[in-house]
Amino acid sequence: MPSEVIELSGHIIDSWTLPRAWDVIMDRGGNFAVEEMRVGTSKTETSYARLKVTAPNDETLELILSELQQFGAVLLHGNDVQTAVVEQNGVLPSRFYSTTNLPTQVRLHGQWVNVENIEMDVAIVIDQANNRAYGKPMHEARVGEQVVTGHDGIRVQPFERARERESFAFMQSNVSSEKAKVLVIHEIARQMKETRAQNGKILFVLGPAVIHTGAGRYVADLIRRGYVQVIFGGNAIITHDIESALFGTSLGVDLRSGEQVEGGHRNHLRAINAIRGIGSVDQAIETGLLKEGITYEALKHDVRVVLAGSIRDDGPMPGVINDMQEAQKEMRQALKGVEMAIMIASMLHAIATGNLLPATVRTVVVDMNPSVVTKLADRGSFQAAGLITDAELFLRELAETLS
Amino acid sequence: MPSEVIELSGHIIDSWTLPRAWDVIMDRGGNFAVEEMRVGTSKTETSYARLKVTAPNDETLELILSELQQFGAVLLHGNDVQTAVVEQNGVLPSRFYSTTNLPTQVRLHGQWVNVENIEMDVAIVIDQANNRAYGKPMHEARVGEQVVTGHDGIRVQPFERARERESFAFMQSNVSSEKAKVLVIHEIARQMKETRAQNGKILFVLGPAVIHTGAGRYVADLIRRGYVQVIFGGNAIITHDIESALFGTSLGVDLRSGEQVEGGHRNHLRAINAIRGIGSVDQAIETGLLKEGITYEALKHDVRVVLAGSIRDDGPMPGVINDMQEAQKEMRQALKGVEMAIMIASMLHAIATGNLLPATVRTVVVDMNPSVVTKLADRGSFQAAGLITDAELFLRELAETLS
Amino acid sequence: MPSEVIELSGHIIDSWTLPRAWDVIMDRGGNFAVEEMRVGTSKTETSYARLKVTAPNDETLELILSELQQFGAVLLHGNDVQTAVVEQNGVLPSRFYSTTNLPTQVRLHGQWVNVENIEMDVAIVIDQANNRAYGKPMHEARVGEQVVTGHDGIRVQPFERARERESFAFMQSNVSSEKAKVLVIHEIARQMKETRAQNGKILFVLGPAVIHTGAGRYVADLIRRGYVQVIFGGNAIITHDIESALFGTSLGVDLRSGEQVEGGHRNHLRAINAIRGIGSVDQAIETGLLKEGITYEALKHDVRVVLAGSIRDDGPMPGVINDMQEAQKEMRQALKGVEMAIMIASMLHAIATGNLLPATVRTVVVDMNPSVVTKLADRGSFQAAGLITDAELFLRELAETLS
Amino acid sequence: MPSEVIELSGHIIDSWTLPRAWDVIMDRGGNFAVEEMRVGTSKTETSYARLKVTAPNDETLELILSELQQFGAVLLHGNDVQTAVVEQNGVLPSRFYSTTNLPTQVRLHGQWVNVENIEMDVAIVIDQANNRAYGKPMHEARVGEQVVTGHDGIRVQPFERARERESFAFMQSNVSSEKAKVLVIHEIARQMKETRAQNGKILFVLGPAVIHTGAGRYVADLIRRGYVQVIFGGNAIITHDIESALFGTSLGVDLRSGEQVEGGHRNHLRAINAIRGIGSVDQAIETGLLKEGITYEALKHDVRVVLAGSIRDDGPMPGVINDMQEAQKEMRQALKGVEMAIMIASMLHAIATGNLLPATVRTVVVDMNPSVVTKLADRGSFQAAGLITDAELFLRELAETLS
Repeated sequence: MPSEVIELSGHIIDSWTLPRAWDVIMDRGGNFAVEEMRVGTSKTETSYARLKVTAPNDETLELILSELQQFGAVLLHGNDVQTAVVEQNGVLPSRFYSTTNLPTQVRLHGQWVNVENIEMDVAIVIDQANNRAYGKPMHEARVGEQVVTGHDGIRVQPFERARERESFAFMQSNVSSEKAKVLVIHEIARQMKETRAQNGKILFVLGPAVIHTGAGRYVADLIRRGYVQVIFGGNAIITHDIESALFGTSLGVDLRSGEQVEGGHRNHLRAINAIRGIGSVDQAIETGLLKEGITYEALKHDVRVVLAGSIRDDGPMPGVINDMQEAQKEMRQALKGVEMAIMIASMLHAIATGNLLPATVRTVVVDMNPSVVTKLADRGSFQAAGLITDAELFLRELAETLS
Repeated sequence: MPSEVIELSGHIIDSWTLPRAWDVIMDRGGNFAVEEMRVGTSKTETSYARLKVTAPNDETLELILSELQQFGAVLLHGNDVQTAVVEQNGVLPSRFYSTTNLPTQVRLHGQWVNVENIEMDVAIVIDQANNRAYGKPMHEARVGEQVVTGHDGIRVQPFERARERESFAFMQSNVSSEKAKVLVIHEIARQMKETRAQNGKILFVLGPAVIHTGAGRYVADLIRRGYVQVIFGGNAIITHDIESALFGTSLGVDLRSGEQVEGGHRNHLRAINAIRGIGSVDQAIETGLLKEGITYEALKHDVRVVLAGSIRDDGPMPGVINDMQEAQKEMRQALKGVEMAIMIASMLHAIATGNLLPATVRTVVVDMNPSVVTKLADRGSFQAAGLITDAELFLRELAETLS
Repeated sequence: MPSEVIELSGHIIDSWTLPRAWDVIMDRGGNFAVEEMRVGTSKTETSYARLKVTAPNDETLELILSELQQFGAVLLHGNDVQTAVVEQNGVLPSRFYSTTNLPTQVRLHGQWVNVENIEMDVAIVIDQANNRAYGKPMHEARVGEQVVTGHDGIRVQPFERARERESFAFMQSNVSSEKAKVLVIHEIARQMKETRAQNGKILFVLGPAVIHTGAGRYVADLIRRGYVQVIFGGNAIITHDIESALFGTSLGVDLRSGEQVEGGHRNHLRAINAIRGIGSVDQAIETGLLKEGITYEALKHDVRVVLAGSIRDDGPMPGVINDMQEAQKEMRQALKGVEMAIMIASMLHAIATGNLLPATVRTVVVDMNPSVVTKLADRGSFQAAGLITDAELFLRELAETLS
Repeated sequence: MPSEVIELSGHIIDSWTLPRAWDVIMDRGGNFAVEEMRVGTSKTETSYARLKVTAPNDETLELILSELQQFGAVLLHGNDVQTAVVEQNGVLPSRFYSTTNLPTQVRLHGQWVNVENIEMDVAIVIDQANNRAYGKPMHEARVGEQVVTGHDGIRVQPFERARERESFAFMQSNVSSEKAKVLVIHEIARQMKETRAQNGKILFVLGPAVIHTGAGRYVADLIRRGYVQVIFGGNAIITHDIESALFGTSLGVDLRSGEQVEGGHRNHLRAINAIRGIGSVDQAIETGLLKEGITYEALKHDVRVVLAGSIRDDGPMPGVINDMQEAQKEMRQALKGVEMAIMIASMLHAIATGNLLPATVRTVVVDMNPSVVTKLADRGSFQAAGLITDAELFLRELAETLS
């Protein structure tokens, strides 16, 4: 029977890496013997296991080994990463390796090299000259680039469950509407402070309900206090934000009285038209037309705002990027340095952002609808912790806690 | 063609009573001629219409007339109400009239008499001797009682849509999670103050999530401030309330840290067992065992608490009523004087209460799940306004607004 | 007091146009006297009302009149439509009139002219030379075009509630998961047959869950039977459709066994890569690579497929339109002749399509999540009837009924 | 440092028992050394581990050991179970052990004895004379009974994840509305056949939406085919079932046309009144009044029906049990021999049944609303697999598959 010896190290017990590895081996019809195992005896000490994996045939063994890589297993006697050359722009070699959003390394000349710009579902391009590797989406592949194929020489660092329960417990799972959420909001506030103290950037992904519910003022407040470095959204959030700044309404509803304003359904179009007429949001601020709101504060405080259009857009508002690949490119650039992401009342842009975020970014999804969180997790953003609650009251509580 | 002349009066235009009446007539295959119509020209002035209704046959005419009664139509030349005698305890005469939850009158000896204790889906019993009429549930019918049958001599006062938009708009429809809710909460607070100023009672129907989310303290606060006169709930709300008072947990989760406490899943059983051992909640307070929480405050402030058991109960806690008919009876009595009902995170008890409430009681249903509101409306509690939001943050905001 | 005489005609009683008009007048502080009223006495006969509307001042009167236009009111002594000239490409005159999705007419030289290409939230451009008027989105406005402003000379034909209950009742309201849906599905099938018998086109808007649930085969079947003329969707539906055709999986789940296939999470990228490599879906069919599925059947049966990209896309698949304005343009063209729209398990594309559909198109939204239907209605697509049910079982039942 | 040696055996690796045990030890501040470990090398072979557990103090050690029992850990040198005597009817000794729904054994005179009638959240009563132990709810405790206290001499057999993926995979997790459900329904049908082939009973817990959606006919069909031995429900299911049998409506909606029948809102009261008048459902069948429906078929085919009342009930229908403790008692008796439970469109009765079911019963929860499944799991019925789909279409598919 063919066999290979693999090593696993790190918090492989607390993070259930080891049992999951065993699981995979047996599920796929293989077997294993534990050659060596050392269990870390304190919270910070890591563990180590060396297993001999056997399988009924080579094909099964390869299948098992490729899966074990997802858990960080390393072949004791491994090879360098394999590559193939791109022969058509925007088309990958057929056996291309598709990434996860976990920290990943490739073996070049016997050395493990970190893959830069890691995100979900992209290819890895090798820059042999500089001994570097980086993630690249399919449509950006260019003729002549070397793309990683197969499974050799790749290792993935699994998501390690945090041991310190007190501070991180929430980040491990979702908080249903039946649990105490004020505590969780305080913990999120604490993590935001911590992130800022270390100069990490905080990303907010915002859906238009933030404006409809009158919660835009809390986001504006968070911007002024320095808790927002990047904003992702679409045409709707900026349109209704500017509608509320110009006319006091959102989708025609007066935000002070909650009443539908006669003729107010036109207001979002009037807002777009006004900014289109004046040319840009910057000019609207310079001329004194726009004096408040999320967009206003963001520009005043150098927040990087990336607005990606969508098929349901009116207008659109100047500044909204209509080409989807271009918008993704802008988002990728804006994500550099982001260490925490808070997604509120947004489905489309939350999923889009989830696709681009490395799993190491602390991610919180706030929505009334549990299915948004489920959808994100189903699409691979397993690190996203869901908070099933009201966006408006969440933001109010968060802003109060941070002030 | 058979015909009858009917009259409609009141806010029949603003409340759409008149067009709905026309609708019914034509839907059922009848026709009408407007004999007289006077439209009120100010917000407080009422309108009047006299219609001649015709139908292809007597049966259709009767059908139409019986439906029109639901809109408050009165036959110009009407009869007294008809009755039949109960011949078996708990069984109604087969042609019994089944009530709506709207204010209803019956014609006795040519005079319109208000039906007392009106609620949905009950029979009307006539007390000829005293010229009175009152609602009575089927199982309480006793041999010899006179029960209203057919449709003659009955008139229902339709639900009148409020004209004063500013203060009541919310009570007309549901507030989705995409609308501004802080405004609505302030309006609810204002109505609570108004209700109390007029000495009306306020009923809270509470589900256990109120405790699980740590929001019990806000309800306790509202009790102390005099905004709660009646509480309906089940075994779960009292059990977890007392669990949190005795052990600081709810369903075993520490309400200060949000963490699952080891062995804490037993705490709700320990709470029940402790109170069973001591005999009653009153004795638990007297002996100093129970010192805080909703139950504690309710007993200290003479709030009427009716707890109806259910099939999923552990224990149950002393004071929970196990027999469903007895529990309904207690609830009916406790509802006297209630002018506002706030139902939070409760499905079973909210629907049960909805069944017993006259449509004239201002009713607010607060739940994360839009389907709870839909279910209530589907079951006839159309007057219930839904607020789709988080129970915990709702109660926090409400308590702050009222303090 | 200023006054105007208006006329309303059509099914103004059954459709509640008249009471809603009264409502508006009184809500805005005006008053009215009924000068003449004729009520249609059969299902097909229309009604007529002439009202004298008075208001405390000219401004209020104008406000009321502009709102009454939404109900089809016509000023007895009205003016021609007013226009202003576009002075900047993509920017409308500031007082531009914003359309609803209802059939609309404008008065040119004393004659009522239908507005072509009506949809929600667009401007009306007047072609004086040809006596024509048509809807146009803001970003397509070109310098020199005459755009309708203000409220004069515009009339909107309100949505008339169907009187024939039997066949259309469903189309008036949503069907909750607690009602019998097989009946409704049979009715939808009947309407599809009727639409096709009159050569009307049927549009399907499809979300990727159609493929994930294995229901793609039922859509393919409906295409073969001639019940699908237009398909709207995004990158996901085509990607997973082709993934399932090439690899038998959707998002890596084997559609025959329901099991996650090892390495299957790559399959959707492999599918995109394969088609990108070959150049287009057409070529994939020609070369025999693609032999089944929705995309295959659509191309074989000349179904017009418009795929609009979104910010969350991988790839994208060749044929997906990345520029949002271009995609909307394609969708607008494809909608010509569409008389029925069935939207299944799609939020983004359903809302986008709702924005473009005239209210006269029979629209059914099928989703497990009631909030999708709510969102559509909140955004103005009030004609959309929601069916809260399972997409997979819905399509199975529909395909069986139509075979 | 205090220490104890424990043993774990069974499918402790595939079922993640071992890593979870390690987790608990380290989470609570203890440590462990693996003294012996044997890993089963085939699907059926079990594994074994012997660990030396150490902790900083005796209290922590005891805490850890009591938690490890939940995973089936056995102290190498263990004691007999400890008990205390009931001193007040319906009140347990204060240190009573509260059960899980997992198979449980207690050590009596050095021998492991199975606890009979195991269910969640009950006490264990020891019958020393007969060397037996059984589960008993708090309110049934009688003076003089010996009740298990503390954690000594108790072992719980953890839920073992099935290794044979093909047939059981579904039973491990929920199926979202975005996955293929027809496959799952076929698997449920297969398991029902298997259960019946082994003479196991199948329990259906039914909510009234089964009738409202017209799906009662499929349940009736399953009864006739012998796939239903026990039915749990409430007043609503029987009332609407009989309403539909007598009048063709459910909540007043005609099940053939889907239309609201004029006056039909009375029909459920008329149905209750008719059966109350005749005395019982049996007599209604005997006299020929009741000729079809779920209730009819159930009585004809000796299905055990337990109907538990609730606070929202009208009537109630004869046969509905009003006292909650009595109803639970009936349900407990009816559960004997039940090996599979299918809960459809029921929240209250599903949770109540979940409380009473041993974890070994295969349990499927079918509901449109994912929160029902979440609630069940939150309350300890972790073995329940949720199928998020439409009750009506589910039952149709299930009945077709089984015919």
